[in-house]
Amino acid sequence: MLSLSPFPSWPEVPPEAWPTSEIAPPSAQQFRDGMARVAAAVHVITTDGPAGKAGFTASAVCSVTDTPPTLLVCLNRSASVYEAFHRNHVLCVNTLGSDQRDLSNLFGGKTPMAQRFAAANWREGVSGAPVLADAVVAFECRIAQVQPVGTHDVLFCQVLAVTQADVAEGLIYCGRQYHDVAVTGHN
Amino acid sequence: MLSLSPFPSWPEVPPEAWPTSEIAPPSAQQFRDGMARVAAAVHVITTDGPAGKAGFTASAVCSVTDTPPTLLVCLNRSASVYEAFHRNHVLCVNTLGSDQRDLSNLFGGKTPMAQRFAAANWREGVSGAPVLADAVVAFECRIAQVQPVGTHDVLFCQVLAVTQADVAEGLIYCGRQYHDVAVTGHN
Repeated sequence: MLSLSPFPSWPEVPPEAWPTSEIAPPSAQQFRDGMARVAAAVHVITTDGPAGKAGFTASAVCSVTDTPPTLLVCLNRSASVYEAFHRNHVLCVNTLGSDQRDLSNLFGGKTPMAQRFAAANWREGVSGAPVLADAVVAFECRIAQVQPVGTHDVLFCQVLAVTQADVAEGLIYCGRQYHDVAVTGHN
Repeated sequence: MLSLSPFPSWPEVPPEAWPTSEIAPPSAQQFRDGMARVAAAVHVITTDGPAGKAGFTASAVCSVTDTPPTLLVCLNRSASVYEAFHRNHVLCVNTLGSDQRDLSNLFGGKTPMAQRFAAANWREGVSGAPVLADAVVAFECRIAQVQPVGTHDVLFCQVLAVTQADVAEGLIYCGRQYHDVAVTGHN
């Protein structure tokens, strides 16, 4: 099990002692413009279970620790897929290859779920969540804990299985454009 | 303030009902090998304050929400810089450009702090944490909340200022190698 404590041992700093309490924060748009310059891999996050099959495109995925293997996914609580992830408690992070831009656009849009999934080949993974057959890498997970932050939930996910496909180039998003990157290297 | 609840409203699923409770998880090495195929931007994370100046290279940085502007950084509790971040309560995420591979290696190694910082130009930001003069983008932050997960702490950071430099190419890490990527695009 993950060790998740809501009250870490860091000392509390009273707001009046914050070095920066008088500073106006950046606007949401300034923050988004800054984040647009940070390159990230592109993933399709899938789920299946009691609430049915669902999937969406995301770049807000991050490795947390390898002991135990854990990653996180940020999910907007107002997203149409939120309820499905909320109820199914499992997900698969499918990291896209350079030839899967169409799939990224499809799962990032308004297309009905059945049509999204019809556009690629999937297998049922160990968690029940669909695993993309030719993902650069797929992480099948159980959602172990959830941390609400602002508009989003941070899903801490225990990794149950990792599958690599024979794909040489990954898809990344940066400057609000797609790019390709070699994923094979020193292993 | 961030809304951070330790007890989310998601229904509890008893362990015996987990769809995958009988599955052997991947090893730490299998997880790391999978994560090595996920491209990520490279950052130098800095701090300064009562515990002194410190910095380290990281790719485990993730946008969380723009309302309020918030990002997260994963930090190993056994890292030599941990205490400084722990006590200073501020940090700056400096996203590296393609010509800053040496800086990435320097802040990812064992070099003493003074030598690391001597290798580049910095200014004191609004938080007190050093801001890299020619970072692709710099996010100055207050550490608002901390979530321990396994060996790491997840630092949820409220963004106080965002600065973009006139840098055209970012540095990414994938397949255990550096790559370059254009960061200018549709703005």
